[in-house]
Amino acid sequence: MKRETPEEKRKRLFQAAKESISRAYAGEEHSIMQAINAYKEIDKTKNILYERLEEWYSMYFPELSIGSQTAYAKFVLKFGANKKTADISSLKEVFGNNAESIKRKIDTSIGREPTKEEYSTISRLAEMLLSAASIEDDLDRYLKESTKRLMPNIVYLIDYKIAAEMLSRAGSLTKLAMMPASTIQLLGAEKALFRHIKFGSKPPKYGVLFKMNQMSSTRRDERGRLARIYAAKLSIASKADAFSKRFIANKLKADIDKALRRK
Amino acid sequence: MKRETPEEKRKRLFQAAKESISRAYAGEEHSIMQAINAYKEIDKTKNILYERLEEWYSMYFPELSIGSQTAYAKFVLKFGANKKTADISSLKEVFGNNAESIKRKIDTSIGREPTKEEYSTISRLAEMLLSAASIEDDLDRYLKESTKRLMPNIVYLIDYKIAAEMLSRAGSLTKLAMMPASTIQLLGAEKALFRHIKFGSKPPKYGVLFKMNQMSSTRRDERGRLARIYAAKLSIASKADAFSKRFIANKLKADIDKALRRK
Repeated sequence: MKRETPEEKRKRLFQAAKESISRAYAGEEHSIMQAINAYKEIDKTKNILYERLEEWYSMYFPELSIGSQTAYAKFVLKFGANKKTADISSLKEVFGNNAESIKRKIDTSIGREPTKEEYSTISRLAEMLLSAASIEDDLDRYLKESTKRLMPNIVYLIDYKIAAEMLSRAGSLTKLAMMPASTIQLLGAEKALFRHIKFGSKPPKYGVLFKMNQMSSTRRDERGRLARIYAAKLSIASKADAFSKRFIANKLKADIDKALRRK
Repeated sequence: MKRETPEEKRKRLFQAAKESISRAYAGEEHSIMQAINAYKEIDKTKNILYERLEEWYSMYFPELSIGSQTAYAKFVLKFGANKKTADISSLKEVFGNNAESIKRKIDTSIGREPTKEEYSTISRLAEMLLSAASIEDDLDRYLKESTKRLMPNIVYLIDYKIAAEMLSRAGSLTKLAMMPASTIQLLGAEKALFRHIKFGSKPPKYGVLFKMNQMSSTRRDERGRLARIYAAKLSIASKADAFSKRFIANKLKADIDKALRRK
C-alpha cells in the first residue's frame, strides 16, 4: 500500500473534521431549536407591529376596536384608505357579525381619512403584521410536527412548544436526557436560581414548566409539586426519546395522573 | 329665532367637541411622530430578524458572509433551498463581483441542504426581513418629504430624522417652538438629566442632537459647545416653522458656521 504524504494526510483529516461537524448539524434537533427561538422573536415582533399600527391608525379611526390583532390589520388593509367607502356586505365578509357595529362606528367617527402618502406606509405595517402572523403559524406547524418525530415521549406529556424550549435550553436531546429530574424541573429558571444562591432569595420551583396549561388551574402551593412530578417523568421520557426510542409515554402519563391524585 | 332645546344644545356642543378633537389630529405633525416611532421599531425588528435568519441559515451554509442584511436575505430566498444548484450567472445578477467568491464557498461548504419543511420557514424569515427593509425605506422617504413641508427651517440645519425625533419628544411643533434653547439641547436626555438632579452624576450635554453627523468628527470636549450652538439656532428655526412660516434657515446656518469657527 502506498504511504500517505503529509499533504494527503492533512487533507484527509481536514475532510474528516468537516464531515463530523456537518453531521453534528445534520439532526432535526438544531432546526427545532432555531424554530422555537424564531417563534418567540416573531411573536414579540408581531406585538410591536400591532402597537405601532394601532397607535398610528387610531388617529384616523379612534373608535375602532376589534378583539384580534390580525383582524385589525385586515381592516386597515381593506378599508383603511377610505373607511367611509366600506359597505356593509364587504365588511361582513371579513368581520361577520361585527360588521354592523363597525359600520355604525365608521359613520360617526371623528377621524379624518389618511392622505395617500400616510396610507401607503400604514398599510405596509398592516401587511407586515399579517405576514408575521402567518410565519408564526408556519413555525407553529413545523414545531408541532418535528417535535413529534424527534421526541414523541416528551410531547405526549407536555405541550410541544414547552418541549422545544426545554430542548433549546438543554442544547441537545442527549444533554436533556442526561439531566437529572431536578435540573429539568428548573430549566429556564437559571436566573432565579442564581439569585437564590447568591442573595438568598426564595428558590425557584419551576422554569419553562410554568407555561404548562395545568399550572394556572393548580393552587399556588401545589405548583412546585406539579412541576416536580412532571420533571421526574420527563426525565425518563427524554431518555426514551434519546436512547431507546421506545414509546412509553402513555405509561408515564398514567403514573403522573396517579401521583397527582395522591395527596 | 327659535330657542335651542337642551337636547339640541347637547348635540351641538358634542359635535363641536368632536370637531375640535378631529382638527387636533388633522395636522401632518402627528403622522410624522408616528412615522419616526415606527421607523425606530422597524429598524430594531429588522435587526432581530437578521440575527434569527443568520443564526438559522448558518447551519446550512456557515461559510456565507455578505456585508449587508438584505443581500443575505436575498441569497437565502433565491438560492437557499439548494445552494449547490446556484450557477455563477444568476449569482452575478444579485451579487455582482462577489459572485465568484460565493460560488467557491458553496462548492466547499460543509453545510447540508435544508429539508423542504425547514426551508419553507427560513425563507419566510428572509421575506419578512426584506419587507421590513422596504417599509423602512418607505418611512424614510415619507419622513424626508413631510418634515421638509412642516419644518423647512429645522431640517435645513439638522438631519430630518433627528428633527422628527425632536418633534416627537416635544409633542407638537408649537410645544417645540416654545421651548428655550437649553431644553432643546437636552431633548432626549431626560433620563440622564434626572440622574444628574437626583444622584449628582455628570450633567448631560446633549440628547438626540448626539446623533448629528458632526458629533463624531468633533473632539469630545467640544461636543457640548456644538450642541449648545445648534440648540440656540434650532430654537429660532422652530419658532419660524411654527409661527412666522418664513424661511430664515440659510441665515441661521451661516451664524452657526461663524460661531463654530470662533474659539
